[in-house]
Amino acid sequence: MHLQRIDHVGYAVEDLEAAIAYHADLYGMSVVHRETSVPEGVREALLAVGESYIQLLEPLTDASPVARFMRRNGGPGGHHVGYGVADVAATLDDLKRKDVRVVDDHPRPGSRGCTIAFVHPKAAMGVLIELVEDPSLS
Amino acid sequence: MHLQRIDHVGYAVEDLEAAIAYHADLYGMSVVHRETSVPEGVREALLAVGESYIQLLEPLTDASPVARFMRRNGGPGGHHVGYGVADVAATLDDLKRKDVRVVDDHPRPGSRGCTIAFVHPKAAMGVLIELVEDPSLS
Repeated sequence: MHLQRIDHVGYAVEDLEAAIAYHADLYGMSVVHRETSVPEGVREALLAVGESYIQLLEPLTDASPVARFMRRNGGPGGHHVGYGVADVAATLDDLKRKDVRVVDDHPRPGSRGCTIAFVHPKAAMGVLIELVEDPSLS
Repeated sequence: MHLQRIDHVGYAVEDLEAAIAYHADLYGMSVVHRETSVPEGVREALLAVGESYIQLLEPLTDASPVARFMRRNGGPGGHHVGYGVADVAATLDDLKRKDVRVVDDHPRPGSRGCTIAFVHPKAAMGVLIELVEDPSLS
């Protein structure tokens, strides 16, 4: 197993447009991708930083996992870290063989055409980890 | 202002050696730097991932900011995100001119010979941001 990079860090935000403007004004970050995912319950924007992204996540509804996170967290904040891997299926199999608790038993489609799977934060020292296989990089 | 990269993501951990072993076993990450900072109240290890690091932070005492974070957070977890910049002093001046609340009014020495400054999470959508100028990269 070898991690290629930090694919992204995901931030839960209340207002996507305000968060985009904040990161553009203060840090010169620009949006390279936008997407709305009804199954995930989010509107998202990806901001490019080196070989990584900052992923801004605004909940679509109060029932969205990102909305629940903000209620638990007492507001917006760092939500998860995405690790870039060459093969999500192989990585997930390897973690499961090592009895690591996962959120997704099988890889599934993520944003921007990636294949993803989440590892449970209880198995990852309190950090929600997303495995990300980006077909544009392989 | 231009961010060069995600320099690192900092995780608060209870047991540094266990956290190093965990990341080595599951993700093949290896330690590239270790440091103890009495002023910061931490023992840390840096694990290389692409152009970034995962920074593992174990509190030295119960009064350490990282220990306080873990009490607030209900345990270990994602603590802060480090943004790589060419010039911390210029970036900090720019943020202060824009009335952004900062933790450090002036740049100060960080680990591995870097110059750093923290931006207050209340000014950064709930995420504690560290500006990092790495002299080995300039």
